[in-house]
Amino acid sequence: MRWPPIDITWRDTPRAEDADAVRGIVASTGVFRADEVEVAVELLEVALREGPSAGYHFLFAHPPGGDAAAAPDAYACFGPIPCTVRRYDLYWIAVRGSCQKRGLGQAVLAAALGRMAGLGAVRCFVETSGTAAYAPTRKFYERGGGRPVARIADYYDAGDDLVVYAWEMA
Amino acid sequence: MRWPPIDITWRDTPRAEDADAVRGIVASTGVFRADEVEVAVELLEVALREGPSAGYHFLFAHPPGGDAAAAPDAYACFGPIPCTVRRYDLYWIAVRGSCQKRGLGQAVLAAALGRMAGLGAVRCFVETSGTAAYAPTRKFYERGGGRPVARIADYYDAGDDLVVYAWEMA
Repeated sequence: MRWPPIDITWRDTPRAEDADAVRGIVASTGVFRADEVEVAVELLEVALREGPSAGYHFLFAHPPGGDAAAAPDAYACFGPIPCTVRRYDLYWIAVRGSCQKRGLGQAVLAAALGRMAGLGAVRCFVETSGTAAYAPTRKFYERGGGRPVARIADYYDAGDDLVVYAWEMA
Repeated sequence: MRWPPIDITWRDTPRAEDADAVRGIVASTGVFRADEVEVAVELLEVALREGPSAGYHFLFAHPPGGDAAAAPDAYACFGPIPCTVRRYDLYWIAVRGSCQKRGLGQAVLAAALGRMAGLGAVRCFVETSGTAAYAPTRKFYERGGGRPVARIADYYDAGDDLVVYAWEMA
């Protein structure tokens, strides 16, 4: 399936099969450790169990042509940051490895920011790593309008900094 | 009850009555909004429901003389930060308003850092606000050996910055 960044079928409501879809998408990127993949799946399971009140919103991108019964090829997970006023965190955004390099990630990012704005967000933050392996990820956020607002040395591990990007919606 | 910073009875295992104790302690500080108080209680409820695997550890300080059946006067909540290697977050630390200014907070902070080190932590982070209302909190962390490692403008709200402190255990 070819992915032009047009004619995407979006879906907001998570369903049980998304646990496998999220695991498959996140693992296929080759960027995340097994324990990180399970954290992504866990957020989906919380959302399935507790509904929107849990504070984890999802957005799934299905291939053009729109067989929404098939597995999605990309997704984002976001939600309000507790103890903040209208600030959201983009917890996860991932595109299936075989569907990358076609603009799908930027389309998902833009759509997720739009969904957050619709939910009342005025700022969105995303945390990522400062390592060389994450240089494409940082470039992805910067291309998508994210502004680096903080860096904490050795946050994730020795030699693995935290970098925070922010978007303003209002 | 007078609180010298000695002869504290510590308790690690949370119990059902701690929901009220946490609510009482956190609310009595006068620093937190009602929704923030409920976030503190929610972490305790998750720990009670799911046990230590949930990643929320608690440490309660009971008055000297040691009636551990009575409500605690201070507590800390901490746990491993997902997707990091041996990094812990100090989620909450609070001393009942009527028991402050006696060194109890620093005793709880030191004990919590010791518990984290015992669990394998090599660094601990805490997030707090940069507003004037939180100046005593920031001074508290600095007196306790915390080093400011990041600041994000307008993180919590317009004019309400995030400040991150870090401790090194290894």
